[in-house]
Amino acid sequence: MVAPSGRHFLQIPGPTNVPDPVLLAIAQPTIDHRGPDFADLALDLLQRIRPVFGTTGPVVIYPSSGTGAWEAALVNTLSPGDRVLAFETGHFATLWRDMAERLGLVVEFVPGDWRRGVDPLVVAERLAADTAHAIAAVMVVHNETSTGVTSRIPEIRAAIDDAGHPALLLVDTISSLGSIDYRHDEWGVDVTIACSQKGLMLPPGLGFNAVSEKALSAHSSARLPKAYWDWAPVLEANERGYYPYTPPTNLLYGLREALLLLEKEGLAAVFARHDRHAEATRAAVRGWGLDVLCADEREYSSALTAVLLGEEHDADKVRRIILDRFDMSLGTGLGRLAGRVFRIGHLGDLNDLTLAGTLSGVQMGLELAGVPVDPAGLQAALEVLRTA
Amino acid sequence: MVAPSGRHFLQIPGPTNVPDPVLLAIAQPTIDHRGPDFADLALDLLQRIRPVFGTTGPVVIYPSSGTGAWEAALVNTLSPGDRVLAFETGHFATLWRDMAERLGLVVEFVPGDWRRGVDPLVVAERLAADTAHAIAAVMVVHNETSTGVTSRIPEIRAAIDDAGHPALLLVDTISSLGSIDYRHDEWGVDVTIACSQKGLMLPPGLGFNAVSEKALSAHSSARLPKAYWDWAPVLEANERGYYPYTPPTNLLYGLREALLLLEKEGLAAVFARHDRHAEATRAAVRGWGLDVLCADEREYSSALTAVLLGEEHDADKVRRIILDRFDMSLGTGLGRLAGRVFRIGHLGDLNDLTLAGTLSGVQMGLELAGVPVDPAGLQAALEVLRTA
Amino acid sequence: MVAPSGRHFLQIPGPTNVPDPVLLAIAQPTIDHRGPDFADLALDLLQRIRPVFGTTGPVVIYPSSGTGAWEAALVNTLSPGDRVLAFETGHFATLWRDMAERLGLVVEFVPGDWRRGVDPLVVAERLAADTAHAIAAVMVVHNETSTGVTSRIPEIRAAIDDAGHPALLLVDTISSLGSIDYRHDEWGVDVTIACSQKGLMLPPGLGFNAVSEKALSAHSSARLPKAYWDWAPVLEANERGYYPYTPPTNLLYGLREALLLLEKEGLAAVFARHDRHAEATRAAVRGWGLDVLCADEREYSSALTAVLLGEEHDADKVRRIILDRFDMSLGTGLGRLAGRVFRIGHLGDLNDLTLAGTLSGVQMGLELAGVPVDPAGLQAALEVLRTA
Amino acid sequence: MVAPSGRHFLQIPGPTNVPDPVLLAIAQPTIDHRGPDFADLALDLLQRIRPVFGTTGPVVIYPSSGTGAWEAALVNTLSPGDRVLAFETGHFATLWRDMAERLGLVVEFVPGDWRRGVDPLVVAERLAADTAHAIAAVMVVHNETSTGVTSRIPEIRAAIDDAGHPALLLVDTISSLGSIDYRHDEWGVDVTIACSQKGLMLPPGLGFNAVSEKALSAHSSARLPKAYWDWAPVLEANERGYYPYTPPTNLLYGLREALLLLEKEGLAAVFARHDRHAEATRAAVRGWGLDVLCADEREYSSALTAVLLGEEHDADKVRRIILDRFDMSLGTGLGRLAGRVFRIGHLGDLNDLTLAGTLSGVQMGLELAGVPVDPAGLQAALEVLRTA
Repeated sequence: MVAPSGRHFLQIPGPTNVPDPVLLAIAQPTIDHRGPDFADLALDLLQRIRPVFGTTGPVVIYPSSGTGAWEAALVNTLSPGDRVLAFETGHFATLWRDMAERLGLVVEFVPGDWRRGVDPLVVAERLAADTAHAIAAVMVVHNETSTGVTSRIPEIRAAIDDAGHPALLLVDTISSLGSIDYRHDEWGVDVTIACSQKGLMLPPGLGFNAVSEKALSAHSSARLPKAYWDWAPVLEANERGYYPYTPPTNLLYGLREALLLLEKEGLAAVFARHDRHAEATRAAVRGWGLDVLCADEREYSSALTAVLLGEEHDADKVRRIILDRFDMSLGTGLGRLAGRVFRIGHLGDLNDLTLAGTLSGVQMGLELAGVPVDPAGLQAALEVLRTA
Repeated sequence: MVAPSGRHFLQIPGPTNVPDPVLLAIAQPTIDHRGPDFADLALDLLQRIRPVFGTTGPVVIYPSSGTGAWEAALVNTLSPGDRVLAFETGHFATLWRDMAERLGLVVEFVPGDWRRGVDPLVVAERLAADTAHAIAAVMVVHNETSTGVTSRIPEIRAAIDDAGHPALLLVDTISSLGSIDYRHDEWGVDVTIACSQKGLMLPPGLGFNAVSEKALSAHSSARLPKAYWDWAPVLEANERGYYPYTPPTNLLYGLREALLLLEKEGLAAVFARHDRHAEATRAAVRGWGLDVLCADEREYSSALTAVLLGEEHDADKVRRIILDRFDMSLGTGLGRLAGRVFRIGHLGDLNDLTLAGTLSGVQMGLELAGVPVDPAGLQAALEVLRTA
Repeated sequence: MVAPSGRHFLQIPGPTNVPDPVLLAIAQPTIDHRGPDFADLALDLLQRIRPVFGTTGPVVIYPSSGTGAWEAALVNTLSPGDRVLAFETGHFATLWRDMAERLGLVVEFVPGDWRRGVDPLVVAERLAADTAHAIAAVMVVHNETSTGVTSRIPEIRAAIDDAGHPALLLVDTISSLGSIDYRHDEWGVDVTIACSQKGLMLPPGLGFNAVSEKALSAHSSARLPKAYWDWAPVLEANERGYYPYTPPTNLLYGLREALLLLEKEGLAAVFARHDRHAEATRAAVRGWGLDVLCADEREYSSALTAVLLGEEHDADKVRRIILDRFDMSLGTGLGRLAGRVFRIGHLGDLNDLTLAGTLSGVQMGLELAGVPVDPAGLQAALEVLRTA
Repeated sequence: MVAPSGRHFLQIPGPTNVPDPVLLAIAQPTIDHRGPDFADLALDLLQRIRPVFGTTGPVVIYPSSGTGAWEAALVNTLSPGDRVLAFETGHFATLWRDMAERLGLVVEFVPGDWRRGVDPLVVAERLAADTAHAIAAVMVVHNETSTGVTSRIPEIRAAIDDAGHPALLLVDTISSLGSIDYRHDEWGVDVTIACSQKGLMLPPGLGFNAVSEKALSAHSSARLPKAYWDWAPVLEANERGYYPYTPPTNLLYGLREALLLLEKEGLAAVFARHDRHAEATRAAVRGWGLDVLCADEREYSSALTAVLLGEEHDADKVRRIILDRFDMSLGTGLGRLAGRVFRIGHLGDLNDLTLAGTLSGVQMGLELAGVPVDPAGLQAALEVLRTA
């Protein structure tokens, strides 16, 4: 093994590589969270964050992980015993289901094979069958971080609308926001859940809820107990640029810097870059003679690619060799995919040459692990990068 | 007004001045939270944090504000409808009471005048009266950040014990931990609540629960709904140095650095420094001819001093002048103390000369605001600093 | 002794306290010094630096200490055996004289008592006596860092002009630039020498020469050997934003940030702030019953104050006590002033409360060292800060 | 063109990519250069730097660029009119020759074709011919940054010894130190010249001279004028951990961190890593069907590789395309190589995957520029990285 030198390749699907200006912004001195400078910062941020969600409405920012933002979406809109419709698209959808149950909700969980997104037809069927409108909310993970499969939110929205069903639409964009095209308002989402450490290019520590008018109405009658997560006092204090608790000032410094970076590149360009990098990555996988886990090309993720190995290979062994030999972190197979897949993150602050280095490392690691691969894989990826 | 130059004087009672090595530690690149380097970091931290709480037991670290840690303490140990005993020692004790009620607990709230801590005799009386042992927990704020008054935890513990009452003892050390002598194990506390941005000298964004064996037992039968705050999956994952969600890596970098700084100075020296600075501050207040809000000298806070002005003066005007003219932030009067007091934070990473500058600024600001003060106040403070 | 906590008080007359934004700017990744981004940076800097010198002409920036900038001024304008006129205003003027001699110049050194600046009458006399115009240059230290005495450059310029003497005027502004009013063009200075670590609020590592037209003419016939310091290749490469060697990129990042800070405050406000802080410091010294070293109030330095102790006291003992007890660095007595004076730096990024803390520390340190002082000194300083 | 995101690829042969810990170290507050903490830092550094040069003798550190260290080597050891022997190995050797002449030395300059190092036989011949021992020094560039060719110092030393000639041996290791095996003492070098921004992984701003006993003796009779560069006052002040001028404190913080990184990896491992990366790079160049500029495989540089294009191609166009499309900086052709070569830096803080990304970018850039290349080049490089 070669002793580590140079920059670590952090190619998991989040946390992503934090840009230097964001890291340095975070190192600025903490200020009084009740003073005028903080209010200026917060008022600016609270506006500037909205376009990233594709909303003109409020975005609540929590000191929390993404799981906290999941919980916030549920406790602010639902009551004990409420029925919710969820889908087994992968590991994180399953964890979110578990959380809903622990909080006292009744989850109708549509099984899945972890290679496909939510089927809008199933949404239509389930809601059509719910003539009593017992289902209070539909929970969808936009981009399953465990599988690299996206769900088609506009089609799901259409299915709900076509069924004339009043259920709320709650969408987890934890690994898609700021990486994959997403439109809270246009797509009629009621609560969008996100966090800092993926496309927003920040360290972990911030959770987000973008909130529709309909969700705010639901809040007024929602009876799940809540205090920390309650939107109401946050939204009220936010009016003046403050928080009802001590906000995570230094991460907010970083958020401002990250939003400026996204604005500078332009969201459309950011999404196009992610699409291109994902395409190059899939070209490599196919060129190697391996399979992309995602089974439906309409649902390819532009944020990460899960690579499926044959049963004779151990994906974690591949990851370990790559970490030891090439100082690169890749995502492990989670839950039922343990040992079967590894995941390549290509989201956040990334460029062509870092992706080329990443794919070079994967190719060499597969070879070292005894997985037969055609080196034309890397060449196919470069072809995409060079010409697209 | 003089345009700002030099370092801002952040003399609120938290967030405190973050030491440069901590800020720079936070700016290190984020790493894989499932990789071996993270586990090394976390295992080290989870041990190193214990002595700061005076415990040999586990400490749960959350990505949250201190209010999140309040909520965690309640939902992990209590069930809907449980009765708890709380004390109106000030603004934050009142907010914690409100939270308990919102979460579905029944709070017996002992009124107070916001100038005194919890009276151990009242604890004894209330518990003695509760022969049915309906009170599940006693909630105490160790150091009331809104008033600069500490409560005497060992005497409260003794009162509980003397009453032979099984109630849990939950203690908020948000503005005392790492600044004022505190002993989770020795004092028989069940859950100690803390956060990052005070004596721990970090930016806001981390909440803490130190947990006794008895609290862990209570957890197993506690029925308040919980997911994000649940100790169980955290403690289980912590065994191997991991978290059940993405942990706030960069703030944890800072925590390691902050713990090293506390170890280097030594906790006893840290506490003695805070005592000395508090004594100097009170000497100044008295020398100016003003009153310390805290009415019982056994309960003086070593972390902050609230200064009570006569009714003819507006404490917020004093604060505004000091901010505008001397670029120093002081704490405002909260709740019923609005306009009547200002608070001088003297906790965290602070030295004699910064305190001297702070007190100089307060003295000049009082004079500029038309509050008659005897300039011997500052001189009395220096006398303490020079000789103690 | 109290273990160090809080921020060190760096109150020597340079290096000064570097503002956080400057430190963080320096931590940005180094870039290609031959690429377009570097040229953009350099072209911007090379314009933006000019007003700080009060010039519309070129400023050469070296990777060097201030002594390097001294050498540059000499070797670019003079030839072996040239006669120069210099003045014993203090330690640094003496060192500069030594350097001139080592480089092969003949120095006419006017003796001084280290408590006064250059006497314009003496300049007039010496130049009048030099009817052959053998004196090629007059070397003046604008602000003697060892004594806290300034020399009156406009009067010196007038003396040269009145004598009708063609000598160049070389001025060291190492501890005055960016702190004390200075005007390269208006005052007819030929080479202004400066460095980064004083009023420019940067770490050490950059030296500067502002260069007049007349100095450029002198360059063409100057025969002292030179390569590294030669202005010509620098000025030529600077036209396009480049350097003939690898420039100190990261310090230049810091310089840009520092110049933005100076622009934001405004040079006039910066100078007024320094004047005010110096006045407050002298008020303290007099109030304590001690003497300011500078003997002529027209020559008081707004950048530092040297405090003269009676012979029965050891100034270095005072400094040592202050460093040990209060974590503050003060300037030592240099050369013939060793043990007799200590120097308080009040230049660069400084505000009222840090100065108040500084003077508090000096007062306490004097008391601890057994130097009898009247505590009214500090009070007198606060009076200045509060009212001016 | 794709808007820049991700980390810039700085693959010029210096400045190199500065490791994050070094950048953060540099952002620490500047301290008193005359205080005890500085002395501790300097005394530690001055010892710790020696093994990097392969010496047990003193190393002088200047605030300067590498050209400053060239000048220091000359003015400390030589006198006006002294004859020196130098070799046209490339652009930098030519610049050093120019400097020597400007300082008043007489240079015997052996012509070269910029594809080979110094021929030890020519050294032998020239010195043998100099029976009067008029040649005072032999000037050799160890690793020509403009060509990627190293000179064989031990053979040159042997040639001098075999000739029984007393000339000093002055060696420029600007782009080899800390990257390519080098031994000041063992190889009998008298002055080794280096700087910070290459293998030492620092920003530019520090120059170094390692000094032999013989060089120190030469110093005592050397008569080139010197002040700033004079070793004597530096070495004297260094004894106590100080400098005769204000040292570049923040870059020294970075130097300590960089030396710790080199120690952690181990110099032997550092050199082996550079050898391996250079071999992979040459494998790519050959695989592409292009030529390495270095004509003698004994003289291949492990720090950089200059790639020679056919006359029908413009190397600067290739570089421009690579910068625009892939955000990577490569070295330009200097002097007579302008437009004919581009240079790939593979020195400093670098790992396999960054090199793979670098070579991917070069391959794609060549293709985009219309230079026909065989994509087997990259594959050949990966083969080296995977198996070596």
